[in-house]
Amino acid sequence: MQIPKRVQFELPEWLFSECDLQSPRADDTARMQLAIELSRRNVAHGGGPFGAVVFERETGEVIAPGMNLVMPQNSSLLHAEVVAVMFAQTRLQTYTLANGNYELVTSSEPCVQCLGACHWAGLSRLVCGAPMALAESAGFDEGPRSEDWKEQLAARGTPVVTGVCASEAGDVLLRYAAEGGFRYNARTPALR
Amino acid sequence: MQIPKRVQFELPEWLFSECDLQSPRADDTARMQLAIELSRRNVAHGGGPFGAVVFERETGEVIAPGMNLVMPQNSSLLHAEVVAVMFAQTRLQTYTLANGNYELVTSSEPCVQCLGACHWAGLSRLVCGAPMALAESAGFDEGPRSEDWKEQLAARGTPVVTGVCASEAGDVLLRYAAEGGFRYNARTPALR
Repeated sequence: MQIPKRVQFELPEWLFSECDLQSPRADDTARMQLAIELSRRNVAHGGGPFGAVVFERETGEVIAPGMNLVMPQNSSLLHAEVVAVMFAQTRLQTYTLANGNYELVTSSEPCVQCLGACHWAGLSRLVCGAPMALAESAGFDEGPRSEDWKEQLAARGTPVVTGVCASEAGDVLLRYAAEGGFRYNARTPALR
Repeated sequence: MQIPKRVQFELPEWLFSECDLQSPRADDTARMQLAIELSRRNVAHGGGPFGAVVFERETGEVIAPGMNLVMPQNSSLLHAEVVAVMFAQTRLQTYTLANGNYELVTSSEPCVQCLGACHWAGLSRLVCGAPMALAESAGFDEGPRSEDWKEQLAARGTPVVTGVCASEAGDVLLRYAAEGGFRYNARTPALR
């Protein structure tokens, strides 16, 4: 195969038939519920237990959903948060969401890749569910993260809220692990 | 505009008409020269001063090139390193390059986003040109990075080499800054 001139990534069909993407979500809890629903449904369809959504902050409109699409779409980049940001920027035809008021709500705290992506996405807020330690206890390698990661994001216009519906979000990860779900980024004892 | 069902990203036309992507590059210097050439040509075509290439390590074959496409393609994700990894994985139809022997050669040390992406790409080596401090002195915000970033990547199978053709790679950044090139991620005094 030659160097491809273009790449294309698709959201799964089930997303549009199974999920309510039209109704606005009023508050953090309702917004996190959609992210968690995406994580659950993604597992039911053979994917990884992660969901994320970009919302317009004032109206609660769903701008773009995301879920882990790494294996079906052949890209290590396609974690839930990256997918949501990618589709939101494509929908709004902008390389930065900072010209509006948009937040990312994610079922788990972001791994090192998604945390990095959040620095330049132009988000006005990041809202997280399950803590990183729980994802790691479920066997996922989340990568290194600086002590002051929240301050670093806040300094770039993206304050962080953690622990929204953390128990419910975490249950999806723990159940996935208990059922032997595949973890392509398995955490090894050598890594801290 | 509704939620898009797919996103598509394209490599620029000039890449295929102006650059030799067929000849293998024997060593680090020759490989870095191509990454630097991409950074220079991207500036000439109105883009940011960053280039990167995924090579097969033994043969030196160009698997996929990358350059900063953030503004023309409306995505904050499309830094040079991310583009190269994305197109390499699409070309090879795999979500991890670890089932082969592939390295990423980049004209500048990776920013926080690209560094994060390198953790899960499956690269067997990362080769960097201009140091982060030089990119920052040219006005780019590279984001936070842990002291032990090289060890963290090495622990995941990706040892890092820095400073290859650093002066020549850095000159592209400094010239871009001197000519008033636009930096959408401008470094502000408040950030360290």
